Amino acid sequence: MGKLARKVAIVGAGMSKFGAHYPKKRNPDLWVDAWLDAVERTDNGIEPKDIDACYVGNFTSDLFNHQGHLAPQMADLVGLTPKPASRFEGACASSGIALRQAVLSIASGVHDVIAVAGVECMTEQPTVKVTDALAAASDALFEYPAGATFPGLYATVATAHFKEFGTTSEDLMRVAIKNHENGAENPYAQMQQSIKQIMESKKARYEQQGKEIPDWKDEFDFLKSPSNIMIAYPLTLFDCSLVTDGAACLFVAAENIAKKFTDTPIWIEGTGQGSDALSLHDRKSLTTFRATKEAARQAYEMAGLGPKDIQIAEVHDCFTIAEILAMEDLGFYEKGKAVEAIRNGETKRDGKLPINASGGLKSKGHPVGATGAAHVVEIFKQLRGIAERNRQIKSTPEIALTHNLGGSGGTCVVNIYRI
Amino acid sequence: MGKLARKVAIVGAGMSKFGAHYPKKRNPDLWVDAWLDAVERTDNGIEPKDIDACYVGNFTSDLFNHQGHLAPQMADLVGLTPKPASRFEGACASSGIALRQAVLSIASGVHDVIAVAGVECMTEQPTVKVTDALAAASDALFEYPAGATFPGLYATVATAHFKEFGTTSEDLMRVAIKNHENGAENPYAQMQQSIKQIMESKKARYEQQGKEIPDWKDEFDFLKSPSNIMIAYPLTLFDCSLVTDGAACLFVAAENIAKKFTDTPIWIEGTGQGSDALSLHDRKSLTTFRATKEAARQAYEMAGLGPKDIQIAEVHDCFTIAEILAMEDLGFYEKGKAVEAIRNGETKRDGKLPINASGGLKSKGHPVGATGAAHVVEIFKQLRGIAERNRQIKSTPEIALTHNLGGSGGTCVVNIYRI
Repeated sequence: MGKLARKVAIVGAGMSKFGAHYPKKRNPDLWVDAWLDAVERTDNGIEPKDIDACYVGNFTSDLFNHQGHLAPQMADLVGLTPKPASRFEGACASSGIALRQAVLSIASGVHDVIAVAGVECMTEQPTVKVTDALAAASDALFEYPAGATFPGLYATVATAHFKEFGTTSEDLMRVAIKNHENGAENPYAQMQQSIKQIMESKKARYEQQGKEIPDWKDEFDFLKSPSNIMIAYPLTLFDCSLVTDGAACLFVAAENIAKKFTDTPIWIEGTGQGSDALSLHDRKSLTTFRATKEAARQAYEMAGLGPKDIQIAEVHDCFTIAEILAMEDLGFYEKGKAVEAIRNGETKRDGKLPINASGGLKSKGHPVGATGAAHVVEIFKQLRGIAERNRQIKSTPEIALTHNLGGSGGTCVVNIYRI
Repeated sequence: MGKLARKVAIVGAGMSKFGAHYPKKRNPDLWVDAWLDAVERTDNGIEPKDIDACYVGNFTSDLFNHQGHLAPQMADLVGLTPKPASRFEGACASSGIALRQAVLSIASGVHDVIAVAGVECMTEQPTVKVTDALAAASDALFEYPAGATFPGLYATVATAHFKEFGTTSEDLMRVAIKNHENGAENPYAQMQQSIKQIMESKKARYEQQGKEIPDWKDEFDFLKSPSNIMIAYPLTLFDCSLVTDGAACLFVAAENIAKKFTDTPIWIEGTGQGSDALSLHDRKSLTTFRATKEAARQAYEMAGLGPKDIQIAEVHDCFTIAEILAMEDLGFYEKGKAVEAIRNGETKRDGKLPINASGGLKSKGHPVGATGAAHVVEIFKQLRGIAERNRQIKSTPEIALTHNLGGSGGTCVVNIYRI
């Protein structure tokens, strides 16, 4: 793997509000929201004439909205016709791939500025159909016909992690509690409530209805109660990310042109991508995602940096267990040791290595194809010190990492950024 | 649009036999067939360890096979795990995009050799579902809900072309007759029969069944008869490409490494991509595809060549009318003048500018996501003088062009090659 022939930077980033927006908003509306948000956050402005191409990350508008061939539509909505417009798909890593391809395309010398989109409108379908559509990211020959869906596949991973390393349900809860606390500080998040707030409002509703108020002393009590239903042992409702409509937009530019748009570009120091067999049964380990390790290896090598240099990270917490695997596979912690860091609060906003300050997929929401680009929106804000409410990391980090996973680890894209 | 930071070449190319293969063969089997064929056609051999990444063009295995997230699966089947594996989608231009992204990725300096796949398995679904799935490449907000499908959309284009330029049904028939004559010489084609042969075998069947033998004097008589059913006026069955399962594989390499694999690389001299509004009603013209014009402009500019330099072309004849539009939009002929060239036989194998010597989508078959890569397989053979049977252009061309269209012209990729 070689070096980029020229440097590439993010010069603007924005997103739509994440939530259940259908039918008021669909992909076109969400994308325009994200585009306008990103334009506003590009210091010197940016116009369609400045942009050479539109790269769209989307998992499956085919199954969600019966709309394939999404990229020209997205390009047209923001005045980019007849420029190149392409869709990139790697399940939930789709816009991670779109960004990576934009970086490579700019480094190639052919393009100078690319608009990267991540879009997904999931709530047009009822939840059972969403689960079925998402299952298309598993192996259609072996896993899907056997009835596997993603909560079940990640439950398998969690069970193995429990057995090998003594990880517990409480550890998973700690991930959820932290991410909801962060999401409560994110005005773009789908669930802007801490789990404590959710618990208190449940209590209030019980009281209002004249029912017996549950005796929950803290979030753990609440999360262990039947109110937090079991989805696939050991994963409960609060271990799962959300079903979300949303979009994100990134403006990516070559080094010689980046300063036209801003004095403080966010440089892509390293980019890596890995793959793995789709089926869990085809892998040597259930508790290590090989695609993550490979993507991280490439990204660190290109950046000339290591895990210890990373000051903040957005990782792919589609399920709470996935955040734990990512912390280990990215080299932040030894295998089996991530939970210690979680127990010590190291990954909270005021900890040694803040993870998912945005609220993560868990609380910010997970419009699958948009998630990779949305990771970068948070990093863009954190590195510039402009994250909203009380979410900004006080020390204003300078080096960051994003980790975007597809399926049960069949695809992974890791990028490293520096301001 | 800038130049490629380094040159890129095709060093191997192959394909599966195109046809109706399901359930005996699905995407994984078709892809492995194509891979093995391409390995065999790589002079000095090629192994997984030589390859940095796997780029997969596929329109909608989501809707056809309930398999999204296709790329890691394809990579795994040929020993490329854990390398980067990504899917690229632009409807029927999907593997054209995959190749273009491979070219850009290699030029970027990050990758040296990429395996490009085009795959589609369509016959798992009944034809009515195929038509419905393909319609996802039209506009899901306006065209699809109005009942538009692709035969109807291209019929609209054809009717407008008839009106503006006096093009006739006979002109469309000439395209079909030529392409079937070419396909009859292609051992990988789905329909290896000229229309004359099809007509004669129909007559023989009538005779066998003791029925009155139709009085068809030539192919035109046959094509005007009720045996050639009307699909969407003026497009008949024989104006439509086929529903096909198939895959193609290209090995793409950087200039400094291409010679490791072959002494006669096929150089990518120019690559271009354009987009347009998905909906026909959003366009200024029904008889010009703006995406083609834009893609061609970029490709010619990068190559420093013009339409007059092209000695052979594979163009996207999803419907016969599409070949006519391509001939004009690529600048080979003035608008409205392509049919003259067709009437004069200029685009036949022994003509001035052979078009679709492979048999085209019309006769070779159209596994939608595989088509762009399959175009290149034919060019690879023609430039090397190794096309099978009587298909090889006698003068062995040195400069070639491929034209890969998505939907009703929402996406177009044009590449120019030189041996």
